[in-house]
Amino acid sequence: MSAKKSARSSHAEKGMSQAARYFKHPLALVESDEVGEGTRVWAWAHVMDGAKVGKDCNIGEHCFLESGSSIGDRVIVKNHVCIWEKVTVDDDAFLGPNMIFTNDPNPRSGFRRPFVATFVRKGASIGAGAIIVCGNTLGEYCSVGAGAVVTKDVPDYALVYGNPARQHGWVCRCGLKLEFTDDKARCSCGRDYISDGMAIRPIGAEGDCMEPQLNADERG
Amino acid sequence: MSAKKSARSSHAEKGMSQAARYFKHPLALVESDEVGEGTRVWAWAHVMDGAKVGKDCNIGEHCFLESGSSIGDRVIVKNHVCIWEKVTVDDDAFLGPNMIFTNDPNPRSGFRRPFVATFVRKGASIGAGAIIVCGNTLGEYCSVGAGAVVTKDVPDYALVYGNPARQHGWVCRCGLKLEFTDDKARCSCGRDYISDGMAIRPIGAEGDCMEPQLNADERG
Amino acid sequence: MSAKKSARSSHAEKGMSQAARYFKHPLALVESDEVGEGTRVWAWAHVMDGAKVGKDCNIGEHCFLESGSSIGDRVIVKNHVCIWEKVTVDDDAFLGPNMIFTNDPNPRSGFRRPFVATFVRKGASIGAGAIIVCGNTLGEYCSVGAGAVVTKDVPDYALVYGNPARQHGWVCRCGLKLEFTDDKARCSCGRDYISDGMAIRPIGAEGDCMEPQLNADERG
Repeated sequence: MSAKKSARSSHAEKGMSQAARYFKHPLALVESDEVGEGTRVWAWAHVMDGAKVGKDCNIGEHCFLESGSSIGDRVIVKNHVCIWEKVTVDDDAFLGPNMIFTNDPNPRSGFRRPFVATFVRKGASIGAGAIIVCGNTLGEYCSVGAGAVVTKDVPDYALVYGNPARQHGWVCRCGLKLEFTDDKARCSCGRDYISDGMAIRPIGAEGDCMEPQLNADERG
Repeated sequence: MSAKKSARSSHAEKGMSQAARYFKHPLALVESDEVGEGTRVWAWAHVMDGAKVGKDCNIGEHCFLESGSSIGDRVIVKNHVCIWEKVTVDDDAFLGPNMIFTNDPNPRSGFRRPFVATFVRKGASIGAGAIIVCGNTLGEYCSVGAGAVVTKDVPDYALVYGNPARQHGWVCRCGLKLEFTDDKARCSCGRDYISDGMAIRPIGAEGDCMEPQLNADERG
Repeated sequence: MSAKKSARSSHAEKGMSQAARYFKHPLALVESDEVGEGTRVWAWAHVMDGAKVGKDCNIGEHCFLESGSSIGDRVIVKNHVCIWEKVTVDDDAFLGPNMIFTNDPNPRSGFRRPFVATFVRKGASIGAGAIIVCGNTLGEYCSVGAGAVVTKDVPDYALVYGNPARQHGWVCRCGLKLEFTDDKARCSCGRDYISDGMAIRPIGAEGDCMEPQLNADERG
């Protein structure tokens, strides 16, 4: 096979493979070549060159993923969410509709300071319209309520809401609120947790607390 | 007339009739065949198959109406609003710009629970950027202030705002705040109301309190 | 030169000049002929006929600038911002992502009252997701925090946040918070301020407190 033909074939294979790998709505704009298999990008969403997107994600309509941002696998990004440079979202996070990230703590037109990073850890959920001030980390499996304005770090499994957001308890991996008696809690889904007064952790089986269903037809 | 010609004519008539029935901006995406006469759908808005839209509505730019959602007649939907499955909006409601509905009270990637319904009753107004946590009903002619986070039902004619939203009085059908003396109030528009301490209702003429003007050139 | 040729040339020149004057993303919609030199309008943004946009502005994706709105020079408009009729934004303002203006204090479907004006003065910054209730003026170089709901005027150089927004201090022209000792403050950027107990003003050199860098590659 000639080098020329090889290159062409390779290109074609890459093209087909890419087409098969993830779904891009005809009205979406995908410039990144780092979009994982099984991910769906809906209408009028824009994934810039250099933005990293994992496998089986859902990128809702009118979303914007900037160069220098990164999201893991199975992340659900609902409509109208912008993920700016320096924002990192780990696997299995849920970003509610119209939630808002930032990357400049003191924005001014004409002054460009270094952007400040934000981290969303594995399995965290951010409610609709919540705002995450940059420089903070949302812990694993935490839950940020709708309309919360997060101005500091959120512990793993913590439930926070309000403006500014304050902690109002703990949630299970499955998202339901936990009720502790002394230092123990059992979620209605069956998973057990233990608290040391400052933090909580699941005990017993490491499997999922209930059978997760892939959001197969998630679109928004 | 041949069957073939009949089918073609019928198709053409349907096409013309549809084109005349409502306005679709060339950059909008309308997959539903249940969009009422006189409704306007602006650029980059998406009305999914199975979404129901009444007559004389205005669907602003970048809106999303999901399958399984429903809005009545003369509903104004300002820009960037998403109406999810299980959200029902009655006639004459106003949905302010960037206001937010939800349909999952405990969202987690990988866990799909049944969606929870939200109802917006006739004539209600939802201010800009307000968030309606699912499972709640906004009563007739209530008014939700800009930026409110609604976490429980809102009574008819109630004025609510804040995060979380609390009631701060009552409003007239025309939207103006009512000042009660004992159990009676007269709006500057002329309509009278009576209160039983728990709820209010208009008294006297059932007509509109002032001549409403159709938002003929509403676009956003 | 014939009149016909002249007209064609003039048209071509105008087209070229326009094309050179500002950048319009191929997926943006610009109907206004009052967009200043060096301004960039990104995908799925819409600048309506009659909207005024100054020089070197950045209009993010999914923005909407309505007829009757006006923004000055070097204004940064992040994604998803709608600037309605009767909103006036002066030079060097920063409008954070998903921030929200309004122009009707008592919206109702079917009732059209006169819109109410909002003013954003020179150098002001509005944080992500903040909501500006119409009828208010944001003073020069003020800073509105992310998620604030502004319901009254904001003084020059004031820092406000919360729902409703309240003042929590003062900021420098460069955006950093000022710490006053008695009636004087020096920003870490070197600029001095004096307070009369009600308001503050910069003293000394009138130049910029630090070398501003144009946001040359600002996109979102």
